[in-house]
Amino acid sequence: MTATGITLGELAVRFGCELRGDPRLVVERVDSLESASDGALSFLINPKYRPQLATTRATAVILGQAAATQCPVAALVAANPHAVYARVAEILHPSVRAAPGVHPSAVVDPAADVDPSAHVAAQAFVGPRARIGARTFIGPGCVVEEGAQLAADVRLVARVTICHGVRIDARTIVHPGAVIGADGFGLARDGGRWIKVPQLGSVRIGEDVEIGANTTIDRGAIGDTIIEEGVKLDNLIQVGHNCVIGAHSAIAACTGIAGSTIIGKRCQVAGRGGFAGHLTVCDDVIVTATSVIMHSITEPGVYSAALPAVEAQAWRKTVARLRSLDDIARRLLRLERAAGDRAARHIEPDPAQAKKGDPSD
Amino acid sequence: MTATGITLGELAVRFGCELRGDPRLVVERVDSLESASDGALSFLINPKYRPQLATTRATAVILGQAAATQCPVAALVAANPHAVYARVAEILHPSVRAAPGVHPSAVVDPAADVDPSAHVAAQAFVGPRARIGARTFIGPGCVVEEGAQLAADVRLVARVTICHGVRIDARTIVHPGAVIGADGFGLARDGGRWIKVPQLGSVRIGEDVEIGANTTIDRGAIGDTIIEEGVKLDNLIQVGHNCVIGAHSAIAACTGIAGSTIIGKRCQVAGRGGFAGHLTVCDDVIVTATSVIMHSITEPGVYSAALPAVEAQAWRKTVARLRSLDDIARRLLRLERAAGDRAARHIEPDPAQAKKGDPSD
Amino acid sequence: MTATGITLGELAVRFGCELRGDPRLVVERVDSLESASDGALSFLINPKYRPQLATTRATAVILGQAAATQCPVAALVAANPHAVYARVAEILHPSVRAAPGVHPSAVVDPAADVDPSAHVAAQAFVGPRARIGARTFIGPGCVVEEGAQLAADVRLVARVTICHGVRIDARTIVHPGAVIGADGFGLARDGGRWIKVPQLGSVRIGEDVEIGANTTIDRGAIGDTIIEEGVKLDNLIQVGHNCVIGAHSAIAACTGIAGSTIIGKRCQVAGRGGFAGHLTVCDDVIVTATSVIMHSITEPGVYSAALPAVEAQAWRKTVARLRSLDDIARRLLRLERAAGDRAARHIEPDPAQAKKGDPSD
Repeated sequence: MTATGITLGELAVRFGCELRGDPRLVVERVDSLESASDGALSFLINPKYRPQLATTRATAVILGQAAATQCPVAALVAANPHAVYARVAEILHPSVRAAPGVHPSAVVDPAADVDPSAHVAAQAFVGPRARIGARTFIGPGCVVEEGAQLAADVRLVARVTICHGVRIDARTIVHPGAVIGADGFGLARDGGRWIKVPQLGSVRIGEDVEIGANTTIDRGAIGDTIIEEGVKLDNLIQVGHNCVIGAHSAIAACTGIAGSTIIGKRCQVAGRGGFAGHLTVCDDVIVTATSVIMHSITEPGVYSAALPAVEAQAWRKTVARLRSLDDIARRLLRLERAAGDRAARHIEPDPAQAKKGDPSD
Repeated sequence: MTATGITLGELAVRFGCELRGDPRLVVERVDSLESASDGALSFLINPKYRPQLATTRATAVILGQAAATQCPVAALVAANPHAVYARVAEILHPSVRAAPGVHPSAVVDPAADVDPSAHVAAQAFVGPRARIGARTFIGPGCVVEEGAQLAADVRLVARVTICHGVRIDARTIVHPGAVIGADGFGLARDGGRWIKVPQLGSVRIGEDVEIGANTTIDRGAIGDTIIEEGVKLDNLIQVGHNCVIGAHSAIAACTGIAGSTIIGKRCQVAGRGGFAGHLTVCDDVIVTATSVIMHSITEPGVYSAALPAVEAQAWRKTVARLRSLDDIARRLLRLERAAGDRAARHIEPDPAQAKKGDPSD
Repeated sequence: MTATGITLGELAVRFGCELRGDPRLVVERVDSLESASDGALSFLINPKYRPQLATTRATAVILGQAAATQCPVAALVAANPHAVYARVAEILHPSVRAAPGVHPSAVVDPAADVDPSAHVAAQAFVGPRARIGARTFIGPGCVVEEGAQLAADVRLVARVTICHGVRIDARTIVHPGAVIGADGFGLARDGGRWIKVPQLGSVRIGEDVEIGANTTIDRGAIGDTIIEEGVKLDNLIQVGHNCVIGAHSAIAACTGIAGSTIIGKRCQVAGRGGFAGHLTVCDDVIVTATSVIMHSITEPGVYSAALPAVEAQAWRKTVARLRSLDDIARRLLRLERAAGDRAARHIEPDPAQAKKGDPSD
């Protein structure tokens, strides 16, 4: 399916952009500032790439007001250039929709209910009482177990596993290797052994969710694990049983969320974030890369425990000193007392104290 | 398969519980304290949920002695309520066993040996000389390579890969996407290039093991990687070549274990734990979430390096100070010396020192 | 395929080793120092295992000059014993090559181009316009989507997903569950929602690359994600969109690399390393286990932020003190000033300062 191009004038009208340049110019594809050539529409979102603007050979660039005057070619000036870019890219490079039907190598249980407009690809399996909605795509090698329910326009890209009884709402995309609805890690100790606790709940996934490659979302122990609408999960994420992830939260790769933790709406978690179990995190929380939330959060804000790597020898010294930090604190207190410091006090482990600062400094 | 319910009297006798309430009451299903309605059996294990006890509408609750008097409905009082709950849940919600046989779409090599009572599901593959034991379940889309040996009652849920020659003992469960027996990461440096070191060992997995979704267990370089009986591994765990995980250890999601490390029996590792390679960790070690073991451990106990995330601005200050920790320590020493402190000494990086404390404090 | 053995004399000549012992001795297999018996060739690479040398029953041992005189059996003394071992192991335990052909259960699109010498295994799928090179192996359950191009002697072990248009060069090995070319995590914020940014690039993988089980490599947003020749990736690694990993770099399991980061050649990243996005890391950088690179690196060297776990109670004290580190630093400065210390100064958060040390100490 080849896009035949679209004029800048049409784009400006359609997306409410200010156009600086000839409205009759036609763009046929998107490309980066650096690689773009004639016919390409480029974009400037990350200010890091602004130096490339001056030399771009794109036909036009989508950008914000701040950079508009520096654009050497036609410009589509947008309040939210990233969102406009995303929509234009979809128009110029539309997704190809698979033809309806079941591939002869696919296995669809006679008791499954597959909409005639759905596509079930080669080597896929759809179990008994599974329901596959209109235009939904079950990619090659996918397994949809008994009683799973996929609404309309869901897309399982390839080799996805949807376990029994899982429900997925419209337009959700699941990338290869993801596993939705495996048993949660429920164990009861019995003497020196572990007994498996039956995992009787399921997983419910809202509309417009995206789930990355090899991500795993466990079914609830009792009651369901819930991923609300518009949530975006990157690759290799673990979501434990009975978690709830609030609508429109976005979580980057390698993050782990232990069981029964409830994350609010519109949260953002950077790569390799983490959450202990049984926590409640309010809406609009941002967690920086590699940081782990170990207590419930009631205040929106940015939370961090990231430790940037430094030259290894310097780090070894720091680690060695870390071990004696308690000793350092005690000796500092003793010195203060010896000096008759009237402010001498136990050094408080409360982070709130640190914020009060020291007026003498 | 519908459970028709069981009386509290029968449960009390069968599991040795003290019954507070009418032994003729019947329970048909398990449910949480909060969601339970008539006919449901609930449970109180995590004290966090005790406030829900007062208002539960469950027919009965499994709980410990401490909370028994506060239970507003019938109570099954158990020494280990979690274990009793796990067993009762299995009775009320029994697993469905697949009928024996090989699905027509499955491919079983003529030289494989599949027990007639085993089930090989749709789109599965069983390679030459593989052995599949009695009542073992090879789920949809699974790959069992040449010469792999699965004992009785093993369950590969779906899309599992068992590589060549891997051996799995009875009643072990492997969840979707897990890969058992891929090549270990064995590389020899040769000038500026890497040469692959053939991975000639295999993986042996004991009885009653559970392996989570998308977890990977590499085959040994020489000799086998060994997962002993009763080990429970959560999702997205990496076990390197030639590791040994001792019986009845439980390891939570996203943990990584580098090659040739030996972990003892009954260890517990919380989410995203880590182990460097070539270590030996004794029995009964507990590792807290996100903590990484970098040296062998000879004493049972709890080990940690977890850094809870805090408000990001406060954390940035801490990180900045961390970089000057060595400087702080040296300047503290100088002050002590200047003050004529007879106890002035180099601040020791040895954690044992820190424990000695300071008698003046 | 049984190897019939090879004489030490032939091995010494072929690999340029000094032979200490009878050149007519025959070895038939490799084994560890501890397990070796008659006919086995062993090796000593990690000095940790040197104590096992004295009692080995191997027929011969490959080792370096330093240990040669202590070897109680025949010795092949090599400048690089690890590389020699890797090559000899491949000779004694050669990989079995699958016969050419397409398994009857495999689905190969009529518009795919599969070399007659390639092998497409059971339950695999090869999409339209995919190209499969000479002697390439598409293992059981693999999915090769539309337009993907695999050169000669590529090996997809089993259940691998190669997404549309991905290109893989000769002799690259991909282990089970890996996903190459899933959509990158590209999102544009639009009010309180996320819009998916089309991921229009692809993935290019060089020659002699190895990709571990359940590792994910995302396709570029615009332009390609690039894995250069000779790169070795372990299991459960995440490579974000538009990353470049330089030739002959080796990255251990559970590492995450955020989008658009460029890693140099011959870098080594230990387990659970991490890289923030949009960074540039020069050649020959080593990152220690669990350490996260948050800034671009321009100097080769070793970088670390690893925190080894310690006994949990001691760690809790350290964490408590960490929170007051800013307070400690400020109070130390006040004491210095009170003591009239002419060197009193703000404690610098710059790690370069810490290195300067204190001449009085």
